[in-house]
Amino acid sequence: MALDTDVSTSPERHMKQTSALGIHIIAELDGCAAMPDKDALASLLSNAALVGRAQLLNIHVHGFGDGAGVAGVALLAESHISVHTWPEFQYAAVDVFMCGAAANPEAALKILVTGMQASHVRVETLRRDSQRPGGA
Amino acid sequence: MALDTDVSTSPERHMKQTSALGIHIIAELDGCAAMPDKDALASLLSNAALVGRAQLLNIHVHGFGDGAGVAGVALLAESHISVHTWPEFQYAAVDVFMCGAAANPEAALKILVTGMQASHVRVETLRRDSQRPGGA
Repeated sequence: MALDTDVSTSPERHMKQTSALGIHIIAELDGCAAMPDKDALASLLSNAALVGRAQLLNIHVHGFGDGAGVAGVALLAESHISVHTWPEFQYAAVDVFMCGAAANPEAALKILVTGMQASHVRVETLRRDSQRPGGA
Repeated sequence: MALDTDVSTSPERHMKQTSALGIHIIAELDGCAAMPDKDALASLLSNAALVGRAQLLNIHVHGFGDGAGVAGVALLAESHISVHTWPEFQYAAVDVFMCGAAANPEAALKILVTGMQASHVRVETLRRDSQRPGGA
């Protein structure tokens, strides 16, 4: 797996995580050798929330038919995780948005990357915050 | 309402919309004079999907208790819309991710901005795509 942006070891990344309300990771997963069906996606979302130390509130998954991809969102007390797949491109669009110092969105993303056996991952990490004093 | 980035009239934006699998708008809404409760958020999400010309598959909203904010996600055939609110900061973290040439994520965002009476909106628009030939 190639990560274009490895945010996990960046001092700037750590600064962002501790000062923002939340961290929102947008990830493009290419070369996915294991495209999930609805049940597999629900399992992946649940496991990603668990490993990301987030409290799962609800999961909803939808299948678009044989070979046509799935979509799923896990609503978390810490925000959400979403996955939308395009099996025809072996591609999944993922976002992991988590608030709170205890959450680990990178660990949640890794569960999704590993579960879909992505060969290449492009990551953009956004700091989510209000414009309050001390905020963004 | 002040928009830091008005993407609706940009030629580059139009190019992006027509060549990418999807457009993902990340928006920080500040100065929100109308923070929704669960029912109001469900209504806002439904209306945003409609005005954004998206097919609504499911809405799930969660309330964190009196004065403590709400979270909601609308799963769409075109991807999703999410809203997470912090009433203590009059702030809402929004994302609108829509695929397909017919969808209008900017129109969906405007419904949320208007509905929450945000006084200031910061927008980041991301192109979501695979690395297939012709993709990102």
